[in-house]
Amino acid sequence: MPQVRFAVDQARRFADQDVPGHNRWHPDVPPAVTVRPGEEFRVECREWFDGTIHNDDSADDVRDADLSMVHQLSGPIAVEGAEPGDLLMVDILDLGPVPQEHGPVAGQGWGYTGVFARDNGGGFLTDRFPNAYKAVWDFHGQTATSRHLPGVSFTGIAHPGLMGTAPSPELLSRWNQREGDLIATDPDRVPPLALPPLPENALLGSLSGDEFDRVAGEAARTAPPRENGGNQDIKNLSRGTRVFYPVFVPGAKLSLGDLHFSQGDGEITFCGAIEMGGFIDLHVDVIKGGMRTYGLESPAFIPGRVEPRYSEYLTFAGLSVTDSGEQRYLDATLAYRQACLHAIEYLTKFGYTPEQAYLILGAAPIEGRFSGVVDIPNACATLYIPTAIFDFDPTPSAGPPERVDRGQCAVSSG
Amino acid sequence: MPQVRFAVDQARRFADQDVPGHNRWHPDVPPAVTVRPGEEFRVECREWFDGTIHNDDSADDVRDADLSMVHQLSGPIAVEGAEPGDLLMVDILDLGPVPQEHGPVAGQGWGYTGVFARDNGGGFLTDRFPNAYKAVWDFHGQTATSRHLPGVSFTGIAHPGLMGTAPSPELLSRWNQREGDLIATDPDRVPPLALPPLPENALLGSLSGDEFDRVAGEAARTAPPRENGGNQDIKNLSRGTRVFYPVFVPGAKLSLGDLHFSQGDGEITFCGAIEMGGFIDLHVDVIKGGMRTYGLESPAFIPGRVEPRYSEYLTFAGLSVTDSGEQRYLDATLAYRQACLHAIEYLTKFGYTPEQAYLILGAAPIEGRFSGVVDIPNACATLYIPTAIFDFDPTPSAGPPERVDRGQCAVSSG
Amino acid sequence: MPQVRFAVDQARRFADQDVPGHNRWHPDVPPAVTVRPGEEFRVECREWFDGTIHNDDSADDVRDADLSMVHQLSGPIAVEGAEPGDLLMVDILDLGPVPQEHGPVAGQGWGYTGVFARDNGGGFLTDRFPNAYKAVWDFHGQTATSRHLPGVSFTGIAHPGLMGTAPSPELLSRWNQREGDLIATDPDRVPPLALPPLPENALLGSLSGDEFDRVAGEAARTAPPRENGGNQDIKNLSRGTRVFYPVFVPGAKLSLGDLHFSQGDGEITFCGAIEMGGFIDLHVDVIKGGMRTYGLESPAFIPGRVEPRYSEYLTFAGLSVTDSGEQRYLDATLAYRQACLHAIEYLTKFGYTPEQAYLILGAAPIEGRFSGVVDIPNACATLYIPTAIFDFDPTPSAGPPERVDRGQCAVSSG
Amino acid sequence: MPQVRFAVDQARRFADQDVPGHNRWHPDVPPAVTVRPGEEFRVECREWFDGTIHNDDSADDVRDADLSMVHQLSGPIAVEGAEPGDLLMVDILDLGPVPQEHGPVAGQGWGYTGVFARDNGGGFLTDRFPNAYKAVWDFHGQTATSRHLPGVSFTGIAHPGLMGTAPSPELLSRWNQREGDLIATDPDRVPPLALPPLPENALLGSLSGDEFDRVAGEAARTAPPRENGGNQDIKNLSRGTRVFYPVFVPGAKLSLGDLHFSQGDGEITFCGAIEMGGFIDLHVDVIKGGMRTYGLESPAFIPGRVEPRYSEYLTFAGLSVTDSGEQRYLDATLAYRQACLHAIEYLTKFGYTPEQAYLILGAAPIEGRFSGVVDIPNACATLYIPTAIFDFDPTPSAGPPERVDRGQCAVSSG
Repeated sequence: MPQVRFAVDQARRFADQDVPGHNRWHPDVPPAVTVRPGEEFRVECREWFDGTIHNDDSADDVRDADLSMVHQLSGPIAVEGAEPGDLLMVDILDLGPVPQEHGPVAGQGWGYTGVFARDNGGGFLTDRFPNAYKAVWDFHGQTATSRHLPGVSFTGIAHPGLMGTAPSPELLSRWNQREGDLIATDPDRVPPLALPPLPENALLGSLSGDEFDRVAGEAARTAPPRENGGNQDIKNLSRGTRVFYPVFVPGAKLSLGDLHFSQGDGEITFCGAIEMGGFIDLHVDVIKGGMRTYGLESPAFIPGRVEPRYSEYLTFAGLSVTDSGEQRYLDATLAYRQACLHAIEYLTKFGYTPEQAYLILGAAPIEGRFSGVVDIPNACATLYIPTAIFDFDPTPSAGPPERVDRGQCAVSSG
Repeated sequence: MPQVRFAVDQARRFADQDVPGHNRWHPDVPPAVTVRPGEEFRVECREWFDGTIHNDDSADDVRDADLSMVHQLSGPIAVEGAEPGDLLMVDILDLGPVPQEHGPVAGQGWGYTGVFARDNGGGFLTDRFPNAYKAVWDFHGQTATSRHLPGVSFTGIAHPGLMGTAPSPELLSRWNQREGDLIATDPDRVPPLALPPLPENALLGSLSGDEFDRVAGEAARTAPPRENGGNQDIKNLSRGTRVFYPVFVPGAKLSLGDLHFSQGDGEITFCGAIEMGGFIDLHVDVIKGGMRTYGLESPAFIPGRVEPRYSEYLTFAGLSVTDSGEQRYLDATLAYRQACLHAIEYLTKFGYTPEQAYLILGAAPIEGRFSGVVDIPNACATLYIPTAIFDFDPTPSAGPPERVDRGQCAVSSG
Repeated sequence: MPQVRFAVDQARRFADQDVPGHNRWHPDVPPAVTVRPGEEFRVECREWFDGTIHNDDSADDVRDADLSMVHQLSGPIAVEGAEPGDLLMVDILDLGPVPQEHGPVAGQGWGYTGVFARDNGGGFLTDRFPNAYKAVWDFHGQTATSRHLPGVSFTGIAHPGLMGTAPSPELLSRWNQREGDLIATDPDRVPPLALPPLPENALLGSLSGDEFDRVAGEAARTAPPRENGGNQDIKNLSRGTRVFYPVFVPGAKLSLGDLHFSQGDGEITFCGAIEMGGFIDLHVDVIKGGMRTYGLESPAFIPGRVEPRYSEYLTFAGLSVTDSGEQRYLDATLAYRQACLHAIEYLTKFGYTPEQAYLILGAAPIEGRFSGVVDIPNACATLYIPTAIFDFDPTPSAGPPERVDRGQCAVSSG
Repeated sequence: MPQVRFAVDQARRFADQDVPGHNRWHPDVPPAVTVRPGEEFRVECREWFDGTIHNDDSADDVRDADLSMVHQLSGPIAVEGAEPGDLLMVDILDLGPVPQEHGPVAGQGWGYTGVFARDNGGGFLTDRFPNAYKAVWDFHGQTATSRHLPGVSFTGIAHPGLMGTAPSPELLSRWNQREGDLIATDPDRVPPLALPPLPENALLGSLSGDEFDRVAGEAARTAPPRENGGNQDIKNLSRGTRVFYPVFVPGAKLSLGDLHFSQGDGEITFCGAIEMGGFIDLHVDVIKGGMRTYGLESPAFIPGRVEPRYSEYLTFAGLSVTDSGEQRYLDATLAYRQACLHAIEYLTKFGYTPEQAYLILGAAPIEGRFSGVVDIPNACATLYIPTAIFDFDPTPSAGPPERVDRGQCAVSSG
């Protein structure tokens, strides 16, 4: 078994660990540890909200979640000899929930999927679902079930929601510029268009004093994926996957976190997937000059071989027409939104509340595909739900649905 | 074997067939044939450009293609007893290229993938690829190869690019309204934002005279997918698929065409997939009142079991940042565009020209997924290329690529 | 589409075709046609009982089937330049049932699975099922259903049950010697241990006169698979498969037939699979000296990519203990027999008769595996049934089975 | 995470554990622990040779292995309320190698595959491979590689080689009778036909004194699979699998062990798979009266969804003809043997020694199938090797093999 090179004590907040991690991207966050090319090692991770979301039946914690603290990143991990222009090859050997007994922390046998309230984070369908919701999932080996979502059971595709290398100063500057420009087009929007640097609640590894202040003022938030990988939330980055990351700074400075027990394509709930703390085992190597050799300026990867096998899917299609009937031009985001809404409407016929259906789509291994992106003016997006995740036949072939009372997910109190 | 209920003589243009089809959507196109629920039958189809694209080494025919003629639709097929509010259940039993000897028509052992010129159709990457290109594919059973794309070979996922039911007058009117509104925002755009009704080159089955003129002036173009299905270009609508279509008019009036030997998710080349004429065998049935029972106002489907099996993919990710570095807000279309451009750039390292790589992505069974659509401001789209479609190892794990001269696809003369 | 190089008129008996085929293996059967390496071509085939089994509800035809006539082989097809010691590479591009309208012949929209009577052919479970049975299957694209087996529906894996190269004189002599030796150990056994050369009903292509008589007296029966391939009945030899056959005579002399719409591993019903006439499209090439280069003295192959996808199986295990409780030593045949009997017993709990269950296992795409062959004294064989072939949940997880009356298969009259 | 209900200290021999396990089957071995229906729990296991096989480069330990000690079984685990006639439903939630740091024991980051010498255990191909061999495998997440088998790497399908319920006295008596009868037919055979009860080295849980002696004299050896499951060595009994075991004694008395990191169908090496110690997480439940309801007198199971995905296989076929050319009647064991020998011969062309090839087939996720078992007199067995387990293209399509020196596995000194 690989040695632990970044340890986390799951009984303590991330800020209180012996070796601190970070929650912002900046080239000057010092490495927490250095590994060699060819090395196999273990990294431990806190769940992305650092233990503030509880295994209970109220969504108040999700409603009140403090987004300034995310994500809790284990690292940076410097890789000897990696230099700008190289590719960092990262093999995800294994990952899983928190292995030892640690009280009530997410990952210790359970995880959660949440929907943020519109005025605190929002989500893909926040116009339709402006309040906070939550489902707690129980882990049974690789299978997840939820008392808040009866009738559903599936094999998770565990993955790190977030993994990436540190940006160079130039790249960081480009990020801040372009995201700032976007925010400036509608600075008061709720939810916001993007998240600017925020010193409040910043964690920057071992940095302190003036250097901390400087870096905290410049460092990029971790919510979006970017050229360094980051919060890509790609559900297929599971066991056995090999990722190739561009190297932008000496040592590459790999960081990661936001482990997911499972997720649907799009992570449409935002809070999001099935969140958990846990461990991840990695192997790293360096392809010298690889960015140029392969023309790669952002990550590429080869998924592993052990994704759960489903052979029947129920599929919904969506178009780029808004809820009010306005035609948009090849807007695939909108088309996927409509496919999700169609699926939610459909699932309510089997007894789920709309918010339960929303949570299912965020957590289960559904696939979301760009089916047509050229047939002007309508993009066509498709959403594939494995039928075997239900303990009933959810297809229209099976006769009229029996409308069962399936209760409700966790809701917020106000 | 099912009886042919809509026959096409592949030696004649679509307008000259004994039983005419149509190329516009309108509730008043008369049924070409009526079938019973439970019936299994064969429909024959022309390829979408009606034989005007040739098996040669010039893309002039694609450059000069007349978009007013598409799509050649076989139908409408009325289904006895189907009424508005029902679901029409359509099983795709089988489909394939033109079965008998018919000279040089696409489908008779070969097909094509084209890229339209910017000023005549455009495509997903038309800013980067403003000219017309073409690749001719040879069929070997279910396998396709192209003399224009050496080193590539794959099993196709044959499907009808277009299938759907007729709109009601109200639905048609809604389409024309919303698409007209969009066009009005930038009426001179090249390529256009949408395609308004166009009497020129309209085919409307057996309609003639004043009725023809009225309908031709109202009927919707077939390019976009809409609530009736239509040109969804979903590559997974292959053999064994069961589709549920809303019924908007008495008899449902099913029409279909635009058969594809294979296609990548998005059909990014627009002209598009591997185009062919051929046959399709269907089974139809009616679920009375199904739209309301299942809350379906647009198609849903269950894909079949015989998609080709690939177990290794090379994956590229894209963000919603423009080529010039501008940040957009959760624009998945843009993110997929960037993933495609990354893949194209990568494939050039192995000796393909950018336009060859573009054609490969349009035709091969690549998957395009919405990976993250909530991590503001960046959408994350991923594009999966099965590595086994190449006769070399296309991964960065395999050592530096040997830069082979792989020739060029068909280009246009001017 | 490939040109037909071996044509069959499905309205006529095999002996009455313009270009005769054969039903015995011998190096001296003259080629019916010669093809070039690299050529793609079509071969048409009769079903293995030449049209004597009917689409009706009596198994009398199976009971009285004349085994001296099988198999109807299309060929020999000589390949230019192939010489002993080479490997003949055969790509199965496509295959399917009889394409045109030809009256009541198997393959024309339907096929059959039979169980021979013990005293005329027998089968894997003939001790338990000494009488003749039959099920008629209807084809719906790649899907098969049977009025004799309600509740069952599956996607077939079409394949040629029999394909192979001609033996050299030495190899033929070895076959006759070893099979004769086996027969001699119990010459009166019913069913027999093996089938010796039999001039009666022999078809030998264009041979006639003395040469016919000589060859008919020496030629090997086609029932067993041998070093040349032959009647391997490997269900996975489906579309897209590449087979490498040893070449034993100049020109290789490829022959084939016994097309199956679907089959379970083992073809335990013997008569067997879902039998049909039809067509097969092939591509051939030659690897010079390949037998020695690769150490191959019998066929090897690479299955295609389009086998139907099932993700849930119900599995039964069997041991090498006889029905009467006698322990045998690592006898995998017996272990598989027991696994089959366990599956049959199980299926009767859901309303099938034992003979119906037997027919299902012979025709559906079940998998039979050698699980343990070293754990003395018990071999362990496993039989995997895809649960999705039933229109009910056949697992013990689903609550007690409802015992439905599922009728009966076709039985014989006496 | 489930609680440990059967703990093993991997630093101590199995006989020296606080709670003893057992290595013989008998109804009177007392339960080590009792669990409730519905309970999820962890069981820890020693590897089957209790730590006597080492991570080194000599096969002397395999040559000298003491077969009287196997298998080290964790249990019996009594399940409350289970009674004879019930089915015990066992879900394999998870399993894996030894989780904590424990020196050099198999499972702690490595495992082994061995071939027994003919005069001490033998194996499937012992006539051809009469000596002892060994390969040591390193674990990288779910991937295995071996310094003794360069060029090979694959994703394992971890499973318990052995799991089962206790026999009733009557069933045990039947086992002893039938196996004794078999031994009596050739009592001096090497290797033996079966293994009779053997008090030497028997472990019987907490039994002692006269009761120990009585039970040790009657208890069945654990090598063969039997009606209770036992040493089935079914590679597909992996994560997510649900097994249904017959219950023969009150409490069912489930026992298990012999964990495998990976195995090929047949476990042809006998010593065998990739052996490891480790943990397994189970969920159990009881189906009252299930044996009769479902007609099950031996185990059935539903495999899980996470077997590694391979899409290209190289397949070899074997017949029931002996090495010396003798024809046997439908002997599938012999046919599989021949398929294995063909595969071994083939792999030597790529530089492996025959014994290396043998070890690969025993450990890698190859599939072994009964293809034809009725085509008298030849059974046809097929062996499928996933081509992606090699770091080179092992197909004949790829051009002549480069004959690389791939060293040798561990051999024995004398």
